[in-house]
Amino acid sequence: MPDVTHPIKEKYSFLDDYSEGAHPQLLEALITSNHTQETGYGNDRYSAEAKRNIRAHLGRDDVGVFFVPSGTSANAISIAACLRPHEAVIAASSGHIVTRETGAVEASGHKIINVPPTNGKLTPETITKALDDNWHFPHMAKPRLVYISNATEVGTVYSKEELSAIKTLCEIKGLLLFMDGARIGAALTSTKNDMTLADILELTDIFWIGGTKNGALLGEAVIVKHPGLAEDFEFYIKQHGSLLAKSRIMGVEFAELFRDNLYYDLARRANGAAEKLSRCIVGAGYALRAETETNQVFAILPTDLVQELQKDFTFYVWEKCGEDWAVVRLLTTWATDVGQLEKFNQTVLSWAQ
Amino acid sequence: MPDVTHPIKEKYSFLDDYSEGAHPQLLEALITSNHTQETGYGNDRYSAEAKRNIRAHLGRDDVGVFFVPSGTSANAISIAACLRPHEAVIAASSGHIVTRETGAVEASGHKIINVPPTNGKLTPETITKALDDNWHFPHMAKPRLVYISNATEVGTVYSKEELSAIKTLCEIKGLLLFMDGARIGAALTSTKNDMTLADILELTDIFWIGGTKNGALLGEAVIVKHPGLAEDFEFYIKQHGSLLAKSRIMGVEFAELFRDNLYYDLARRANGAAEKLSRCIVGAGYALRAETETNQVFAILPTDLVQELQKDFTFYVWEKCGEDWAVVRLLTTWATDVGQLEKFNQTVLSWAQ
Amino acid sequence: MPDVTHPIKEKYSFLDDYSEGAHPQLLEALITSNHTQETGYGNDRYSAEAKRNIRAHLGRDDVGVFFVPSGTSANAISIAACLRPHEAVIAASSGHIVTRETGAVEASGHKIINVPPTNGKLTPETITKALDDNWHFPHMAKPRLVYISNATEVGTVYSKEELSAIKTLCEIKGLLLFMDGARIGAALTSTKNDMTLADILELTDIFWIGGTKNGALLGEAVIVKHPGLAEDFEFYIKQHGSLLAKSRIMGVEFAELFRDNLYYDLARRANGAAEKLSRCIVGAGYALRAETETNQVFAILPTDLVQELQKDFTFYVWEKCGEDWAVVRLLTTWATDVGQLEKFNQTVLSWAQ
Amino acid sequence: MPDVTHPIKEKYSFLDDYSEGAHPQLLEALITSNHTQETGYGNDRYSAEAKRNIRAHLGRDDVGVFFVPSGTSANAISIAACLRPHEAVIAASSGHIVTRETGAVEASGHKIINVPPTNGKLTPETITKALDDNWHFPHMAKPRLVYISNATEVGTVYSKEELSAIKTLCEIKGLLLFMDGARIGAALTSTKNDMTLADILELTDIFWIGGTKNGALLGEAVIVKHPGLAEDFEFYIKQHGSLLAKSRIMGVEFAELFRDNLYYDLARRANGAAEKLSRCIVGAGYALRAETETNQVFAILPTDLVQELQKDFTFYVWEKCGEDWAVVRLLTTWATDVGQLEKFNQTVLSWAQ
Repeated sequence: MPDVTHPIKEKYSFLDDYSEGAHPQLLEALITSNHTQETGYGNDRYSAEAKRNIRAHLGRDDVGVFFVPSGTSANAISIAACLRPHEAVIAASSGHIVTRETGAVEASGHKIINVPPTNGKLTPETITKALDDNWHFPHMAKPRLVYISNATEVGTVYSKEELSAIKTLCEIKGLLLFMDGARIGAALTSTKNDMTLADILELTDIFWIGGTKNGALLGEAVIVKHPGLAEDFEFYIKQHGSLLAKSRIMGVEFAELFRDNLYYDLARRANGAAEKLSRCIVGAGYALRAETETNQVFAILPTDLVQELQKDFTFYVWEKCGEDWAVVRLLTTWATDVGQLEKFNQTVLSWAQ
Repeated sequence: MPDVTHPIKEKYSFLDDYSEGAHPQLLEALITSNHTQETGYGNDRYSAEAKRNIRAHLGRDDVGVFFVPSGTSANAISIAACLRPHEAVIAASSGHIVTRETGAVEASGHKIINVPPTNGKLTPETITKALDDNWHFPHMAKPRLVYISNATEVGTVYSKEELSAIKTLCEIKGLLLFMDGARIGAALTSTKNDMTLADILELTDIFWIGGTKNGALLGEAVIVKHPGLAEDFEFYIKQHGSLLAKSRIMGVEFAELFRDNLYYDLARRANGAAEKLSRCIVGAGYALRAETETNQVFAILPTDLVQELQKDFTFYVWEKCGEDWAVVRLLTTWATDVGQLEKFNQTVLSWAQ
Repeated sequence: MPDVTHPIKEKYSFLDDYSEGAHPQLLEALITSNHTQETGYGNDRYSAEAKRNIRAHLGRDDVGVFFVPSGTSANAISIAACLRPHEAVIAASSGHIVTRETGAVEASGHKIINVPPTNGKLTPETITKALDDNWHFPHMAKPRLVYISNATEVGTVYSKEELSAIKTLCEIKGLLLFMDGARIGAALTSTKNDMTLADILELTDIFWIGGTKNGALLGEAVIVKHPGLAEDFEFYIKQHGSLLAKSRIMGVEFAELFRDNLYYDLARRANGAAEKLSRCIVGAGYALRAETETNQVFAILPTDLVQELQKDFTFYVWEKCGEDWAVVRLLTTWATDVGQLEKFNQTVLSWAQ
Repeated sequence: MPDVTHPIKEKYSFLDDYSEGAHPQLLEALITSNHTQETGYGNDRYSAEAKRNIRAHLGRDDVGVFFVPSGTSANAISIAACLRPHEAVIAASSGHIVTRETGAVEASGHKIINVPPTNGKLTPETITKALDDNWHFPHMAKPRLVYISNATEVGTVYSKEELSAIKTLCEIKGLLLFMDGARIGAALTSTKNDMTLADILELTDIFWIGGTKNGALLGEAVIVKHPGLAEDFEFYIKQHGSLLAKSRIMGVEFAELFRDNLYYDLARRANGAAEKLSRCIVGAGYALRAETETNQVFAILPTDLVQELQKDFTFYVWEKCGEDWAVVRLLTTWATDVGQLEKFNQTVLSWAQ
């Protein structure tokens, strides 16, 4: 076999949290399990094990657990399962389903009612405003579902109080509550967090636990609390092309992530790296655009420093602030290289003001 | 790490061609490549390499190559990309899109015009009949695409003459031709085959090369010849939830499968195993339902023998033939255990009539 | 105002049952009501009156009654309201939704499971066969609804026994039953009929009463028995573009049709005309392809006679039977001109064999 | 026949422009034409005549003209015909497709990119901003169509300069331009207008002429300039349930509306009535929320006056302005009763400040 490793890239990337492959423990499990014969399409023993492990973390045996290959499929399938054709979903205009999923929700027929985000989050007030603006029935799509992300797309997390307030409103108004958990690991290990996975289950109707951005090669686990929704959920997965013949891969991965606490350990490592970056930036006299709550750092740096950093690192320049300053976004993961992080921080410190 | 290997199952499975994991060479490549940082969503260097390798096998540089996680996603996305909302696809009623994809084609809005299969295949005559039955415009959906599978769902393969005749008809009638290649490896290495991958490219508008059923953990490579179709193809992949953040996995796998001839070697091995089973069954005095052309064996066995075999093996009982006989379906793969195959054959021979 | 009447066509048409405008009583009511101000979108007093009149004929006050402009909209909206995205509808392959609606059911995402018709009808046996062929869940769309037409597309009608048997099966199997009533007037006034509108209501979950083919300018009344289906039905109508601002037009028309028995009188007249044609054809020594049960006549006539008739009349040549014979389809309506019908019959009699 | 006229309502309505039936000339034409036999589904002689009349007003013979029953169907069908599944439409957040069509655009699979309105209108600047915010391909739906209304939902009209600027931008950016003409009559007869129907044709790719709100019982005429779009347009109409069997009704109506200048005369009458209301309100010392450009008046009146007016009239209270003031919306039409309008004005004048 030829050497298939591409050379390490010249510039180290803080672009996103899916640049590397899987955590080694997951990869080893894949290797060890590779030759057992398993029943296809999610009926394998690894998926069964993964479901048991996740349910143990949830503290409930009676919830549906389903594996799908991507975040967009998790969102599109969950929303399609929740809504009748004339029903709409309320989301922050910064939400992933609004900005980064190529109209997948609309492609399955549903309107998204956009709400201005409050630190990336929805609030009872903004949801109520959306309801007030969308009551003219039957000439308007009927709001039926609330979509939130935790951590949000800007790295913030919901407190238990915030989530409870939304859930209470949803119950009063007959709305279902759905949480996009692409970065739920980062959320639950944030220093700002005061919830457990069991709390999330309690306070939502359906949510998902992201694997792709926290150690897995691919895969997200959708948790369906409502029995009516769970019943036919596999039909939706299959119809969306997301029922993998060798669904065992996701079973093997999630069995490891939730066997003990690996899922949380990896997320904590990502958050820790972000905190180190943030502390250094602040220490060097620069401001953060927002407090760093998870594994996303939004820092306001001078253009010259940005250019200097770009010699060795890749990251998003999120927004220009006039000629001299820019907001940059830095993402960290369980795989973030400590040496590279130190090197980044050194450069920042050398430009301390 | 605990031992995650589930015990070998008591019964060996000839149920399908996706019971095992990946071919070891692919798994090794995944491990070796695991820690390099790559750009997400298909823009990684492994995917680029895989595309180069596949294009070399196709003999053309100018075709679109796209990786998607499953056969159903490959079919649904390709068909959605080919059709306007009022256009329909013609398929054999035994076709995978008709019988095993939970209405995914209809879910993206398109009618399937069913045609009775001829050995699992379409012919110019049956396609013409479908056109003749669907001309009452604009009261009928407009036939625009022909869907065929090679190998077919019953294991048969298209000859070059058969495929050419269909392609010629399609060109005359203004139809696009799409081939589902979930088992294209088995087809191209069949003793009945007289085509190359380049021939398939020449004689279709769009087709896909199945990875899942021939050595990969997951992934199919969609080959789009028509530049108009290829242009926005990634939008469709993303919208269907099939654009993996770590799409590199499929890149790594297909780079290996098409680096040299591994893809064909694996398929040939599967076909060879099926041939061994077939020869033994015929040698024992039993009939095949149809000649074995690829990795699917349809054998007519006495009920008693079937029950005896079921003590050690799992497989589909395809159809009952009265009280005393049944058609069974046996699938083989690159991973089929030679010892188990011998054991199966021994049992058959001990019941030779 | 210039004279807008186009000259009477040279050839009289037996092509279909929508060649003329509205019955004069409906037109007069439109004129009389034209200048009253009414609330839009179905909330007018005429629609309220029409609903009362229809409910009186149904013998129940608690069913939903909704007006839509066309048969295709009635079918597409009703089916969309009944099904979840992964659910399928079972229909005869001769059904209108299969053959004449440009894939409207599929366009709203649903698979139609085709069943061979028995005199244009479904039976418990053919429905059961469809269920048996579509059990492989979740890989197959889930049958959830049965679609039948009464009268059928070939002019036959369901007996109470036949419909009851289907309803019983549906209840056992958890299926909803939907009747396309484009020609329900013709069915209920057929000499073969033994049901009332109240029976139809009793034996289905949702059905519609066709106005367009029985005296109205446009409009069909969808009757929704199941309260859960009725609740949000207007959203579906609006979303499909079928909620007319001046929905009053359909209210005015249906108020007249069901004020007393005009709806039945018109249908009886259409059936009577068909009977006259049939009796004459048989009297002249020619065979009918099938007994005439409603307003469609399928006659097997010599090609020469067909050509002679085509000098003065237009109608469909349904099928060639060799060189010398053809099946022709003749449709009659409440507006069928008695003189023209006599003239047609004269020509047939002059060719009596 | 019983007297079907509902009594005149106690309160006269300025709620909308679809409270009455059809203009008498259209109704007469319907009566006169009622008994001719015509070919169904749009192939009748009245529709042919209507198309000729409309094309004469457009000054071009080579454009597609299609009749559909409602504004929502006109919008949903046109947009579905213009877009591939991954393409999006840009619209003002006040646009009818955003606020009053129950997600019909999304139901056919497409994302609407919302833009803040400028007096109800889009501008090159706001469209450019939408493009700038939606470039992240293939993760975002691709903007492909611009939707505008003329007159807008708040009664304003586009000048030729404004429309030309948008058209130029669309051509540069590869966007199609679609105009919702539910109130195009009011727009083209506004004192602010400087365009002809031919100008609109020149400056858009597809637009529609509203019948429902300007004299017809139902029906809108979609004008398709682009030959590629026109080719299969009838399939879309049929698939959406909008191809009426007796499409002749719309043919008869539009033949009258565009035989001479009736369409414009009716719209001018509606605008004139609105002007009278506006002038009186201003004369009485009250402000308009916006200058009255067409048949919609938005007036700021004291709450007491509003309550007084509500004794005799119905209209929308659009918005409260504190305790003492409210914005009311008044709509006028060709059918607005002059006596009632005078009575309304008298009440206003009696409260002059």
